[in-house]
Amino acid sequence: MLEQYISSRNLRFVLYELLDVTQLQKIERFEAYDREAIDMTLDAAKQIGDQYLFPFYRAMDKEKARYADGEVLVHPSMKPAIMAMVEGGWINAHDDFEAGGQQMPYAILNAATLIFHAANANIACHPFLTTGAANLIRTFGSAALNETYIPNLYNGTWQGTMALTEPQAGSSLSDITSSAEPVNDGEYYKIKGQKIYISGGDHNAVDNVVHLLLARIKGAPVGTKGISLFVVPKLRYENGELVTNDVTTAGIYGKMGQKGYVAAHLMMGEQHDDCRGYLVGQPNQGLRYMFQMMNEARIGTGMVAAATASAAYYASLKYANERPQGRHPSNKDVHQPQVLIIEHADVRRMLLYQKAIVEGSIALLLQCSLYGDLAHHGQGEDAVNANLLLELLTPIAKSYPSEMGIHSVSQGMQVLGGAGYTDDFPLEQHYRDIRVNAIYEGTTTIHGMDLLGRKLTMENGKGLQLLSKEIQTAIEAALLIPNLKPYAEQLMKTGASLQETTVNLFQLASKESPEVFLADATLYLEYFGTLVLAWIWLKQALAAEKGLAQNPSTNDQNFYEGKIQTFKYFFEYELPKMVAMKIRLNSSVRVTLETRAEVLV
Amino acid sequence: MLEQYISSRNLRFVLYELLDVTQLQKIERFEAYDREAIDMTLDAAKQIGDQYLFPFYRAMDKEKARYADGEVLVHPSMKPAIMAMVEGGWINAHDDFEAGGQQMPYAILNAATLIFHAANANIACHPFLTTGAANLIRTFGSAALNETYIPNLYNGTWQGTMALTEPQAGSSLSDITSSAEPVNDGEYYKIKGQKIYISGGDHNAVDNVVHLLLARIKGAPVGTKGISLFVVPKLRYENGELVTNDVTTAGIYGKMGQKGYVAAHLMMGEQHDDCRGYLVGQPNQGLRYMFQMMNEARIGTGMVAAATASAAYYASLKYANERPQGRHPSNKDVHQPQVLIIEHADVRRMLLYQKAIVEGSIALLLQCSLYGDLAHHGQGEDAVNANLLLELLTPIAKSYPSEMGIHSVSQGMQVLGGAGYTDDFPLEQHYRDIRVNAIYEGTTTIHGMDLLGRKLTMENGKGLQLLSKEIQTAIEAALLIPNLKPYAEQLMKTGASLQETTVNLFQLASKESPEVFLADATLYLEYFGTLVLAWIWLKQALAAEKGLAQNPSTNDQNFYEGKIQTFKYFFEYELPKMVAMKIRLNSSVRVTLETRAEVLV
Repeated sequence: MLEQYISSRNLRFVLYELLDVTQLQKIERFEAYDREAIDMTLDAAKQIGDQYLFPFYRAMDKEKARYADGEVLVHPSMKPAIMAMVEGGWINAHDDFEAGGQQMPYAILNAATLIFHAANANIACHPFLTTGAANLIRTFGSAALNETYIPNLYNGTWQGTMALTEPQAGSSLSDITSSAEPVNDGEYYKIKGQKIYISGGDHNAVDNVVHLLLARIKGAPVGTKGISLFVVPKLRYENGELVTNDVTTAGIYGKMGQKGYVAAHLMMGEQHDDCRGYLVGQPNQGLRYMFQMMNEARIGTGMVAAATASAAYYASLKYANERPQGRHPSNKDVHQPQVLIIEHADVRRMLLYQKAIVEGSIALLLQCSLYGDLAHHGQGEDAVNANLLLELLTPIAKSYPSEMGIHSVSQGMQVLGGAGYTDDFPLEQHYRDIRVNAIYEGTTTIHGMDLLGRKLTMENGKGLQLLSKEIQTAIEAALLIPNLKPYAEQLMKTGASLQETTVNLFQLASKESPEVFLADATLYLEYFGTLVLAWIWLKQALAAEKGLAQNPSTNDQNFYEGKIQTFKYFFEYELPKMVAMKIRLNSSVRVTLETRAEVLV
Repeated sequence: MLEQYISSRNLRFVLYELLDVTQLQKIERFEAYDREAIDMTLDAAKQIGDQYLFPFYRAMDKEKARYADGEVLVHPSMKPAIMAMVEGGWINAHDDFEAGGQQMPYAILNAATLIFHAANANIACHPFLTTGAANLIRTFGSAALNETYIPNLYNGTWQGTMALTEPQAGSSLSDITSSAEPVNDGEYYKIKGQKIYISGGDHNAVDNVVHLLLARIKGAPVGTKGISLFVVPKLRYENGELVTNDVTTAGIYGKMGQKGYVAAHLMMGEQHDDCRGYLVGQPNQGLRYMFQMMNEARIGTGMVAAATASAAYYASLKYANERPQGRHPSNKDVHQPQVLIIEHADVRRMLLYQKAIVEGSIALLLQCSLYGDLAHHGQGEDAVNANLLLELLTPIAKSYPSEMGIHSVSQGMQVLGGAGYTDDFPLEQHYRDIRVNAIYEGTTTIHGMDLLGRKLTMENGKGLQLLSKEIQTAIEAALLIPNLKPYAEQLMKTGASLQETTVNLFQLASKESPEVFLADATLYLEYFGTLVLAWIWLKQALAAEKGLAQNPSTNDQNFYEGKIQTFKYFFEYELPKMVAMKIRLNSSVRVTLETRAEVLV
């Protein structure tokens, strides 16, 4: 029997009962997305996950991607799976009908994407990476670029990538040095340089790879202001033929996890000084273009993390329901059979923790996706507000699932004990795979600085005001429900406490230095993120209470009760951590800044 | 150049300046261990680490142990390394002079062991596992068993193991079913059964493997009262010849880490119904015997964790001191070169966290080792008290380094960013290797229940009283030093708060059920452990202040300042977490107990 890797019931709960996504039908673009259409969409995704993705998750770890004689060979299941996703229309589902898309809202597309990633992110990342690359060309590229690249990207025979990182420029993109020299008045540019850690950067499940690559046109200003975006294919057309474009794969990285998914080291113009790049949009606007896609990539990273944690949760839940071991503290009679480990309080704690992280993250990610739909296709102030909320929440949606997902999978492994450490079970792969998400698309500290240094002050702090209002709305509703009231009060206090801490920090920014203000930005991110998740959990508890009031079936009764218990778990075990973080965030002892490098020995 | 994996300076600080281990010279058995002897001991260990262990750490992960045609093949570096450790006298260093040992105190032996484990625990575990097995035979076995086994174990040609776990009996040892049937009135026993996850259970770097195996003599009582201890060799003597003893290696486990170190699945009496075991000591006393060695095994697991975290810390520190990336928040001028990442506050935070965990754990482990020496070889009340402190602190010494070491290595990986996820650097191996320590020798929850359910109430709570006195002594000394005074006060308050929480919990035990009392034992373990580490850090700060007052060299000045900063880090960032844990531990909402298994979907 196929193992569970995600809960379809939970996705429907989030979409219908929590977010009411059919509200999007009010927007003309999305009017076809009624409940039936959404159900069909999710079922179609699950079928692909079951058939093409999940069965190969373990296999592509054991028979990992490899580099031989200049070629990158991926698992044979990769190509049919990519093609199944392409044929299902997933690669351009969000696009306009007239461009061949399905005008699918992100909230729904991302619910489906969570299914794919939970089944096997090592495969599922490929088509969505292509989508991202194609979006850049479609949004900013010329008609000629569109004509040449989009059809082949969308039919799945060409892979798209984002080529940003260089050996000397990781977090610091302003230090990119790859160069672009115009030829024939900019007909094309000669590209020279190296790109590292390029996900999907080369592999044999496709016929060609198209890099959306950042480089600096000769004479361009230093820093981020001189970075341009180019299309740099592995093979380029010359007289209607595909010929080599002098993009050499120097090798692929040996990674701890995601071994089915290549990270390549590429060298442009290294062999023949003839690597051609085609400028996308205007010169020196590359980083701006790239960043318009970055929110999606960041939400995408959060989704891979939440989905991996989901698969790990269900694997450990299954084990806990099947494995007898030990007895209750109050009845240790060895003549009695052992109990299932799910009966032990500490195993339940570990399962509740996982459920809290997985379902909290999924709800947050789909909430953000909905904000994205409203921001891009809604009207007037609603659209503006949704955009601000999306901007504010993106660092959390990227980092919280990535960071807490690591702990969540670790708890999943712990449920299995020794078995979890062996490759007889998938937990050890989840544990290795999930770790990278806190590094991808900006390490956690980058998002802490983004939140504290940029997002909070955006539009005079309007994002934070909007979020506070959302939280207040949930609190007010919860105050009316006796079962939730104490938690609503707890959240109210914690929210006030966060406001206070935030004001204190901003006073530091003006009284002291940006260094002092930002020193604990990573901790602030966790602090803020915990509050956001508490809000998401309170909203889920409200929806579950509503469900419970409607005479549910036994299954639904259990499902809703599970939501309430997990909500309580979050407020009892996770939310109090903010009290400790607050103490540190308000301390005036600048330990990290005052520590000289020489004393770290 | 050889990379750093442990700080010799720090080990000397802990031994001399923190613990004053030369005090042991007052005990006749240890009178030879003056500072010169200890220095030589540590240097000798470091030399073996540098030459035989560290150079093969990465190699034995890539060329992992494997099982082929019934044989288990380990890395070729294993045998020479084991022999170097044997020839250095490490395998029986703790033994009496007359038994060929060096009467080395555990405090010193374990400092050396930390060096070995930091260099390469995949190898170093082998001889110490043999030591543990030999100790059982020496302490409880007959003269004949001693004669047959000890010389070959101590010369490194035979491997010793502990064979406890069975498929149905992991945490629950009372459910062991391996059987032993006496032959010739107990001359030997016919052993039948399976043992799983047996570390070092079979490998080709030795000529024979000797299992110290738990089994149940036919007709013995059920539960722990019917478990006996046997010597079960892979090859047994028959007429002076070594012949097979019908111990079949069914396979080895594919593990996420520690791939150089075998975990075997063994079947006894499977092929010829002729597996012979030799009873150690009295029937039905097996678990008691085993547990007399368990404290050492538990401290040993903590040491592997602390040592692995140490190697990871120095690898990430090196990277942070070499890698330029980004600029300061207050000076982002892209015309300026990038700064070393150690200049970034968040990187320092991650390094300080690692240093806090690594050096805190090492100090705690050696403190416990010293208690062990005083307990076993000291006199009168001092010995009794040392034993109580050792018993009380063992769950912390096992679990804190194991649990926090996981996070510590993860922060080390994060310092490297993308590079840390690749096998170009050792962090990804440390990350995989260290994870198992929270599972080995009792998962963390087992130690939580041991602490709360057993150790705190031992001898009417005398252990806790003794520890409180130790903490009070450190606080009183620190109150006199202005730099430490606020932290001493913080610890005083936190200690009082822990007492209060503990009293509350014990009231639950009597008013409610053992289930309620123990439900959050794992959290209590972390809570208690954090206080213990704060005490250890305060003691280190006191020693460092003393060092600073003695006109130190520049290097020592930096070293002591690093201690003070790391101490401050611990009190600023880690100790406040107890406030949050306290909230949860005192809550009357029994989330985990009230959650029905059916709602976890």
